[in-house]
Amino acid sequence: MSLITVGTMAFDAIETPFGKADKIIGGSATYVAYAASNFVKPVQQISIVGNDFPKEEMEELRSRGVHLDGVEVVPDKKSFFWSGRYHEDMNSRDTLVTDLNVLADFDPKVPDSFQGAEFLMLGNLMPKLQLNVIQELKQRPKLIVMDTMNFWMETAMNDLKIVLRYVDMLMVNDAEARQLTSEYSLVKAARAIMQMGPKYLIIKKGEHGALLFHGDDVFYAPALPLEDVFDPTGAGDTFAGGFMGHLAKTKDISFENMKTAIIVGSAMASFCVEKFGPTRLKEINKDDIDNRVQQFKDLVNFEIELV
Amino acid sequence: MSLITVGTMAFDAIETPFGKADKIIGGSATYVAYAASNFVKPVQQISIVGNDFPKEEMEELRSRGVHLDGVEVVPDKKSFFWSGRYHEDMNSRDTLVTDLNVLADFDPKVPDSFQGAEFLMLGNLMPKLQLNVIQELKQRPKLIVMDTMNFWMETAMNDLKIVLRYVDMLMVNDAEARQLTSEYSLVKAARAIMQMGPKYLIIKKGEHGALLFHGDDVFYAPALPLEDVFDPTGAGDTFAGGFMGHLAKTKDISFENMKTAIIVGSAMASFCVEKFGPTRLKEINKDDIDNRVQQFKDLVNFEIELV
Repeated sequence: MSLITVGTMAFDAIETPFGKADKIIGGSATYVAYAASNFVKPVQQISIVGNDFPKEEMEELRSRGVHLDGVEVVPDKKSFFWSGRYHEDMNSRDTLVTDLNVLADFDPKVPDSFQGAEFLMLGNLMPKLQLNVIQELKQRPKLIVMDTMNFWMETAMNDLKIVLRYVDMLMVNDAEARQLTSEYSLVKAARAIMQMGPKYLIIKKGEHGALLFHGDDVFYAPALPLEDVFDPTGAGDTFAGGFMGHLAKTKDISFENMKTAIIVGSAMASFCVEKFGPTRLKEINKDDIDNRVQQFKDLVNFEIELV
Repeated sequence: MSLITVGTMAFDAIETPFGKADKIIGGSATYVAYAASNFVKPVQQISIVGNDFPKEEMEELRSRGVHLDGVEVVPDKKSFFWSGRYHEDMNSRDTLVTDLNVLADFDPKVPDSFQGAEFLMLGNLMPKLQLNVIQELKQRPKLIVMDTMNFWMETAMNDLKIVLRYVDMLMVNDAEARQLTSEYSLVKAARAIMQMGPKYLIIKKGEHGALLFHGDDVFYAPALPLEDVFDPTGAGDTFAGGFMGHLAKTKDISFENMKTAIIVGSAMASFCVEKFGPTRLKEINKDDIDNRVQQFKDLVNFEIELV
């Protein structure tokens, strides 16, 4: 049971109210891979990096069962670089620098060895590239999930709407769901998005948890109340990685199992924000994850008897 | 098993993105009473109104088992009036008019017939008046819960901190918890508040649900994702009424039962916002409430097997 993850591998420079990190490892595909590799092997990575991306990081990923045949290494260019500063609420941020570098030429190819994958996670990328990957697959995966962002709604809405017809699930944050539909009510936004193509929708609300929609069914997964959110970078991708990892591991894409997958994703994201970049994700083991998932169970579980 | 509720009975004028209502019934004690009376009788109301407060409204409350011996009627003055306009997110609002009227002279007295009540809900009021009520009670209630607001933190912080030492639970929204403690993290804010006196704390987060804290235990109750929040006025007080009503009905103030009580409170609040003022609260019956509580169970319930 394999999972393809398409997205960026990058350097980030991050400022939060808690501190500053210059040039640490980042990128959507990196976070998805670190999270998902706890649950499923192989994770098949499609991305692009420059000559400056650390070999040790590639080795670390390989040692966790991440296949990098789909990662193009451009010898004479630099890796994608993003720099941002978070506001106190940690839900909003300013982008300070975006150096596309290798990303400007990204033309994702699916290696032969990746054909037949049953799960596909399309990280936030130009919609046309997301569509290319779908069209390169000889066999349609069992579940195709895509992420996107406001930037593509502003610059490539038509392409975005085309990709939406080909995917099973869209995974966005609340602001993006509102922008995509011009509906303020998330219930109305969800209904509108499910009419654009995806049968499933996850709306991520950061510290306020996440909502899963499918037809008339809704599931609300809380976020763990944390003492400090140290660095939210990558939390959404880590969530996606845990979610897809659990589904791929259990080979079950029922709504019931998606609920569990959201809890697993939320647990992974709650680790991610505890340290800068993917640092914390490299430290945790199965026991840590199981304990965290149990904390989520305690957090929302209640008994009720209607008399 | 009786519940005393202290607070305002008022007229409100409300503007929301959905419409406008001039001079409808409002006030914290009104909402608490409408919600709690579904679960416990009598609800013993302590408030003050002017000569303009409708007799029919008093009759309606009486018919639901609300005792009004503690409601002072001032013959030559008007009832408290508040007017506000909600922003699109429905979580923030501007106050347009505050006419204290009778509230300026409010000196709440506990009628003899109310002595011995086991539950006390102190609605948002000047802290000194909240303390007076506690001190007038000959027997300490089993559970004292108080609400407050930013206004009292700015104008009567010392008094507020004194009342906090006498209550079992504080119930505030996220912005108020942050302002009271100067902590942005709600987990840190909760710890700081529980050091000020209350052993229990509920932080209300509007459309994002509510958190219950007690020692190291936390419970996260979601809010029901609603198509439209028509008018959020009174939602917090309705939540409090449902919460206290369930506790008073079950006579059980364990943490486990408080979880259930929060769900009941959230269910009541989800009705409240469906129409202007307390309109919707007057329409619903036990079946409606039971169905809504079941919806909350479906919303958060998940199975997980750690393998």
